[in-house]
Amino acid sequence: MNEQGSVGAVQPQTMHFQDPLRFQSGAVLDSYDLTYETYGELNAAKSNAVLICHALNASHHVAGYYADNPMNVGWWDNMIGPGKALDTEKFFVVGVNNLGGCFGSTGPASLNTKTGKPYGSSFPVVTVVDWVNAQARLADRLGIESFAAVMGGSLGAMQALQWAISFPTRIRNAISVAGAPGLSAQNIAFNEVARQAITTDPDFHGGDFYQHGVVPRRGLRLARMIGHITYLSDDAMMEKFGRSLRSGAVNFHFDVDFEVESYLRHQGDKFAEYFDANTYLLITRALDYFDPAQEHGGDLSRAFAAAVARFLVISFTSDWRFSASRSREIVKALLDNRRDVSYAEIDAPHGHDAFLLEDPRYHALVRAWFENIHGNLAS
Amino acid sequence: MNEQGSVGAVQPQTMHFQDPLRFQSGAVLDSYDLTYETYGELNAAKSNAVLICHALNASHHVAGYYADNPMNVGWWDNMIGPGKALDTEKFFVVGVNNLGGCFGSTGPASLNTKTGKPYGSSFPVVTVVDWVNAQARLADRLGIESFAAVMGGSLGAMQALQWAISFPTRIRNAISVAGAPGLSAQNIAFNEVARQAITTDPDFHGGDFYQHGVVPRRGLRLARMIGHITYLSDDAMMEKFGRSLRSGAVNFHFDVDFEVESYLRHQGDKFAEYFDANTYLLITRALDYFDPAQEHGGDLSRAFAAAVARFLVISFTSDWRFSASRSREIVKALLDNRRDVSYAEIDAPHGHDAFLLEDPRYHALVRAWFENIHGNLAS
Repeated sequence: MNEQGSVGAVQPQTMHFQDPLRFQSGAVLDSYDLTYETYGELNAAKSNAVLICHALNASHHVAGYYADNPMNVGWWDNMIGPGKALDTEKFFVVGVNNLGGCFGSTGPASLNTKTGKPYGSSFPVVTVVDWVNAQARLADRLGIESFAAVMGGSLGAMQALQWAISFPTRIRNAISVAGAPGLSAQNIAFNEVARQAITTDPDFHGGDFYQHGVVPRRGLRLARMIGHITYLSDDAMMEKFGRSLRSGAVNFHFDVDFEVESYLRHQGDKFAEYFDANTYLLITRALDYFDPAQEHGGDLSRAFAAAVARFLVISFTSDWRFSASRSREIVKALLDNRRDVSYAEIDAPHGHDAFLLEDPRYHALVRAWFENIHGNLAS
Repeated sequence: MNEQGSVGAVQPQTMHFQDPLRFQSGAVLDSYDLTYETYGELNAAKSNAVLICHALNASHHVAGYYADNPMNVGWWDNMIGPGKALDTEKFFVVGVNNLGGCFGSTGPASLNTKTGKPYGSSFPVVTVVDWVNAQARLADRLGIESFAAVMGGSLGAMQALQWAISFPTRIRNAISVAGAPGLSAQNIAFNEVARQAITTDPDFHGGDFYQHGVVPRRGLRLARMIGHITYLSDDAMMEKFGRSLRSGAVNFHFDVDFEVESYLRHQGDKFAEYFDANTYLLITRALDYFDPAQEHGGDLSRAFAAAVARFLVISFTSDWRFSASRSREIVKALLDNRRDVSYAEIDAPHGHDAFLLEDPRYHALVRAWFENIHGNLAS
């Protein structure tokens, strides 16, 4: 095992696309940018590329740091780097900000050259299928015919699964961590409350707040607070905050008494500073709409009939947002198709957030999977 | 078994109190009203009185209906009436709207005679201990020295437990349904998001919106939507709504696509029409602050040391808001004190809301408990 390290200072790049992209909705984006980062080297056979798909509020910045901001470390830096579970000395890793995002790729805050104004409310509703299509075009331009693996957690896992369905011959391994084959009614309900918090904020202006020089901060803040509750398990929250009081006693007011209140407000405030409200709507809608079984009469097994990738599916026992049973639905559907699938249910206490944390069993599993891929690589 | 029926048309009554009431916070309410309803007859020995304590958004209107509005049926009408589990032919049942409420008892929307304006933000933060003290004064005025039982679900269960602690000789049975000995960090977190939704609504005006002729409807609506998610189990929501689409297909917009979105918006809209925003803050804070173990160094067993009532504790397996394990903490603390306690964990799929529903096993248990109480009544 190599010494584990950082990929070091990294630089995002932006690729411009002129070919119009037709979305599932029928809407067309005439041209667009995708912002991405890469780590490691693409081998001569171009067989060692791994695509990392991001979840709700993450981006193309998956590993390393920025020279001008060393504190800004990639969101999956504990997983990806030289000698790490996904070893950048062996693999060429690509992270990409999805369309509709707010970290460089074309999204609602981008200028629509046709109107000279930000897209705002006119940015089309984008789906996981659309994202995967855009990612495939980026792969084309990077000269990657087939990914050794596509990997993601949560919403990122949905993209990995969609890759196996949309482009069966362009993905050799799909790694789904803390994923689900579609949202439950409760999942949709939480998304809906978050969206309602944003769209009913008077500063939202129907999505065209950019022109008004305001941001629907109150709505974004609430959306993020709700999100944070669902990312942590009840037990993890109890462990982290308990009923601890900021001042040691209750103060008979509605300001912060409990540590957990302080935490949520802080997270909400931070988020409202940098995240785009329209992107939040788009991404939660992409989550709601992801449902590969739908066009097969609700039969998930049939949805995976064309997939030929090998699958690694990982879930966490304390994840109540996308519970282990949802991952087992994926595994069952793959087994119905006699696909090559490994499944691990990891007894971790951290809830949905566990996919971002450095659990040694989880990382060892991913490491072993990639070592096996590497052993079989065409070089 | 008697034929089950309704207590019929009922009328709320209001009792005025002139004795100042000191709250746990130190604040004093010089005078106040309590609105209540009674069903059945108090027997000669005044031994058959049962107090019903309400949860977050309920009131004194526990059973029966109003002659001028027959659709307005009491919130526990399936439990209480002639021949029902709590039989009003045997018991004298009292329902009371708690202080700080918005259904008749003195609360933030009431006129403060000192200022000639609604209390608004100046209404003191009220606790479960304060409510129980006020309920005891109502009992005094009704001539009830000791309740045959105090019963409640959720926040109502907390009041029943507090009665056993505050007034051990005035309560012979405490019935806790879907209760908890205190909120978890996650419970507090949900309350905090709901409060932040209300207090950051521009129409809240720091709690003094009455003078502005507006209501923080957006905040109330979001608070209610969040609440509804936590009242239902994930499974119950899936059973009730699934991923059903209003128009049979997704429409690539942020308006209602899924049935669950329509349900939440409808519930939120309805709630914002009638509920007082300050009451919502007060009641959620009372929930947060309930913690009988706190003054005993966190030792719940010591909190119950003085209690002498018999206890019936009921929980529901699918309740993730106040899970069965929270009820077991109560049972454990009572057993540590060698108290007389019966515990039932009912395998019901409906989540926290189960306490309001007519599960035959649950109702049979309550019925048997009250029949036993009735058999031992001094008449």
